[in-house]
Amino acid sequence: MAIRKIEVRERLMERNDVIARSVRRRLDEFGVFTLNLVSSPGSGKTLLLERTLDALGSEFRIATVTGDVQTQNDADRLARHTSRLVQAVITQGACHLDAKQVETALEAIDLEFTDLLFIENVGNLVCPAAWNLGEDAKVVVMSVTEGEDKPLKYPKMFTESRYAILNKIDLLPYVPFNVEKAIGFARDVNPSLEFFLTSAYTGEGMEDWYDFLRDRVAKLRGAAWSWRS
Amino acid sequence: MAIRKIEVRERLMERNDVIARSVRRRLDEFGVFTLNLVSSPGSGKTLLLERTLDALGSEFRIATVTGDVQTQNDADRLARHTSRLVQAVITQGACHLDAKQVETALEAIDLEFTDLLFIENVGNLVCPAAWNLGEDAKVVVMSVTEGEDKPLKYPKMFTESRYAILNKIDLLPYVPFNVEKAIGFARDVNPSLEFFLTSAYTGEGMEDWYDFLRDRVAKLRGAAWSWRS
Repeated sequence: MAIRKIEVRERLMERNDVIARSVRRRLDEFGVFTLNLVSSPGSGKTLLLERTLDALGSEFRIATVTGDVQTQNDADRLARHTSRLVQAVITQGACHLDAKQVETALEAIDLEFTDLLFIENVGNLVCPAAWNLGEDAKVVVMSVTEGEDKPLKYPKMFTESRYAILNKIDLLPYVPFNVEKAIGFARDVNPSLEFFLTSAYTGEGMEDWYDFLRDRVAKLRGAAWSWRS
Repeated sequence: MAIRKIEVRERLMERNDVIARSVRRRLDEFGVFTLNLVSSPGSGKTLLLERTLDALGSEFRIATVTGDVQTQNDADRLARHTSRLVQAVITQGACHLDAKQVETALEAIDLEFTDLLFIENVGNLVCPAAWNLGEDAKVVVMSVTEGEDKPLKYPKMFTESRYAILNKIDLLPYVPFNVEKAIGFARDVNPSLEFFLTSAYTGEGMEDWYDFLRDRVAKLRGAAWSWRS
């Protein structure tokens, strides 16, 4: 029975990857820089996105897809910070988004008028690691209240991510958390992981994150321009 | 294919429940009060158990089973606080413990000389909710850094739990978290949920938790006594 389970799972994953590649092609075609934000529940993904929408919403055309197990609380929160449609996917118990859900969500988003797409995955440090959604990169968000050894305990999430945000740094004076140790553990698992240190709550460190997004969007625009001309 | 997936899943769950009932019978037979601790990563389960082992280890015979996706970090931490064997289960990527893993772990634990068993589940607010391990009750641990709406976003975990620990209350002055609102949301989902407010880090509120454990062990001993005599 274990073998049967694995076979079904592999077929589901293959099907997911086919759809993810098709999503990837559409996003490439329209030059949309797409980040898939993953984390454990409560790391501060939603507040980070609210702040990002506030800060960059007039510079860029930002679309958002949020996944939740049961509610659309996060989508409601984001909707207060953008005039654009926030696509809420309720996974009905599943611990991750899949490419089909993203593909469906994108049908309602005008990609031609989109520079940046944030996919806020279900809060879960295990399942979303295995599911490619067609994104440019996964960003793992980890808060300083979580303990430094999370990269060792959930290595797949950290190897699958290209960027890491260490959030809630305003709480560093009050928690037993060693930033260097945490970054060291993360780089043991994935040496090329790029880190941002932020407090979405106080705003500390957010400018680096915004500058990174500006840089990526500018590069994609340049590429789309040269490709079209 | 979706139907096929559901069928396989249901058969796996049925098999799990059969084993869970057998684990349950063994624990009942030996009068072992068993709690299955569930939470998102970084809520402080391991520190809570370290403190509990320190505080009650001379009063009671406490056994522990810890589940981790990849490492045995938590087991190593707990082992420094008990002279008894800590059973580490590495789930190899799975986002929860299952009853078979607990059954196997219990083979190495002398239940006759055990009053309390803590099962520290994989840090995950979705998957462990669906898996019965033969425990007396699930205890959901939530920290005040996580946001008040977690019970609404992960309702199954809160309906499946009989107890909830709101941990890291020492951080309340520094985070935007309303305790009454969080408890209210949790009780919307599960009106009979019993709450403990703790800081495993500073020790605040831990005596209530210890008294609760003392009370449950005393009751089980009384029951075992009357049943045997």
